[in-house]
Amino acid sequence: MVRASIRALALAFLLSSLGLAATADAAHAGRGAAPVRVGIVLFDGVQIIDFAAPYEVFGQAGFSVATVSPDGRAVSTAMELSVSPDHGFADAPAFDVLLVPGGDVHAAAADEAILAFVRARSAGAKHVLSVCTGSHILAAAGMLDGLTATTFYPAVGQLAADYPKIRVVSDQRWVDSGRIVTSAGLSSGIDAALHVVARLRGEDAARTTALHLEYDWRPDDGFVRGRMADRYLPGLRDVAWPSDIAFERLVAVGDEDRWRMRYRVASQTPREKLLSRIAHSIDGDGDGWRRDPDEDGYRWQRNVDGRRLVLTVATWPGERDGMFELESRLVIAQGFAQEGQPDKPGARR
Amino acid sequence: MVRASIRALALAFLLSSLGLAATADAAHAGRGAAPVRVGIVLFDGVQIIDFAAPYEVFGQAGFSVATVSPDGRAVSTAMELSVSPDHGFADAPAFDVLLVPGGDVHAAAADEAILAFVRARSAGAKHVLSVCTGSHILAAAGMLDGLTATTFYPAVGQLAADYPKIRVVSDQRWVDSGRIVTSAGLSSGIDAALHVVARLRGEDAARTTALHLEYDWRPDDGFVRGRMADRYLPGLRDVAWPSDIAFERLVAVGDEDRWRMRYRVASQTPREKLLSRIAHSIDGDGDGWRRDPDEDGYRWQRNVDGRRLVLTVATWPGERDGMFELESRLVIAQGFAQEGQPDKPGARR
Repeated sequence: MVRASIRALALAFLLSSLGLAATADAAHAGRGAAPVRVGIVLFDGVQIIDFAAPYEVFGQAGFSVATVSPDGRAVSTAMELSVSPDHGFADAPAFDVLLVPGGDVHAAAADEAILAFVRARSAGAKHVLSVCTGSHILAAAGMLDGLTATTFYPAVGQLAADYPKIRVVSDQRWVDSGRIVTSAGLSSGIDAALHVVARLRGEDAARTTALHLEYDWRPDDGFVRGRMADRYLPGLRDVAWPSDIAFERLVAVGDEDRWRMRYRVASQTPREKLLSRIAHSIDGDGDGWRRDPDEDGYRWQRNVDGRRLVLTVATWPGERDGMFELESRLVIAQGFAQEGQPDKPGARR
Repeated sequence: MVRASIRALALAFLLSSLGLAATADAAHAGRGAAPVRVGIVLFDGVQIIDFAAPYEVFGQAGFSVATVSPDGRAVSTAMELSVSPDHGFADAPAFDVLLVPGGDVHAAAADEAILAFVRARSAGAKHVLSVCTGSHILAAAGMLDGLTATTFYPAVGQLAADYPKIRVVSDQRWVDSGRIVTSAGLSSGIDAALHVVARLRGEDAARTTALHLEYDWRPDDGFVRGRMADRYLPGLRDVAWPSDIAFERLVAVGDEDRWRMRYRVASQTPREKLLSRIAHSIDGDGDGWRRDPDEDGYRWQRNVDGRRLVLTVATWPGERDGMFELESRLVIAQGFAQEGQPDKPGARR
């Protein structure tokens, strides 16, 4: 926000109707402390929100923010926004906070110039913050070995597989391992950046910044993607997929207690045959899914951590031959840990 | 997020361990519907998060997104990120959704070329979405007359004063007035953009997008800046401020039930004298603040909507002469509407 007059207005109390021009809104820069210098590493394929949202957070906190690309030339982000950085690696100034965003990091995580820059500049920084798959760049630079870290939820398994020395977690919105902070996917970078503000300027400064951003920062009980119920969905690696199959995801919604996925599927294999192959895979996946023999359709149950999971899978005819929809639903019921125990009326869902 | 292999991984269920390359992730584009074309108006001073976060939301929803500036040349955002648009006004294609971000909108809201473009392109769009002070541009274009709208919280009063034909509200995170949606400040644009996705593609698509963004979208009970307790802070227009006074805001934190503001103040006027002038203004501000005669310091009470508000103001010595800190605290107690009624033990706070 914030044209001059509006910035003045932002100084509420002594502000929203102060009637005199406030002469400074250091925006929580705090007590004459030296300004914090943030450097953001940009590369082709960088995800917009991964760098832009923390840029806003740090800027509103009164930090100075500069962007850097390998050669100093414009980068094309994921979704193709063109952004011109302030510096190339060769002329980048010193930074107190180094931000490594994610996105299409395949090339960046294999680019020795980027890895060398991140490694060198991290050594001089007070904090290094990765957002989303930016942690894969830190991992490739060898900076996460021996630490706990997180990433974009669907990439958690890959990070763990590629870097066995990292303790990869999916149940935190960001992981503070001391100097290095890794955040989960996309919008998680807002929360992690606020956490870095709190580390450097205190909790009050971070809360003030969040409120100015009109953002509901909940450092202790905030949303964590990896806690949603889809973490219990069975893997389907071993399904005998037909070679012509193609998926389009239509719906992936839920919360900590339930999940629903729907795909449009294109294949010449009949849908009932495909469903049967999927069911066969779930039956044998080793996670303890037990098919309900009394149920006409495809329904499984499984007990995990004192909770009963119910999974149903069904298909629907599509708009034309060779296309259909496939939907799975997972519901977690609490308080029914004993196998065979009937549902108690009035029990907590 | 989202290199190619990671994008495939994002196709959970049939995905997180699918083991075959998913051939399409239309990301909720939905059933072969025509793609939604989003146009984002950029101008010098545009706030980064105002346009970048909705860009991410719309892109993840499978919409095509293009940016436009008046002459097609790069713009320098607030906080000076340089962004090169896809089009100038002259060669901009048709859009289904027009996004008007905020920021330093002083020049933009007075720029006839921008107003004419916004007016003309809004006429052909299914939805127009303003973020933050972007609503001041829509207002200047005459597009909000007769409608309900909102804006960045500290700019609410100014929008209402400048445009009396608009019903300006501060108690909603976004306002859907049919074709035009206006959102509150900064991060509110994420929620409002998700709402536009819901309008165009349905609630499932918006929820799927939010979950992919790892964002805690709560359309019904989400955070609203204008509901925080500082809306009850007294205006201080009539304080006899000394001419040399300067403020730096250090803290502005709270929630719906309490608020705390702290400023560093520079002035040669002694702090106790300034405090006395502020107290005199609060005593006479007409909002019914009643100074507590038994209290040694400065404490006021006021009853509003069945709730008791308690305001305290104090100063502290600064680091050097001519500087000090000024802090106000507001607490809202519920269940004590009757004047003089003692606190009930166990009553709801």
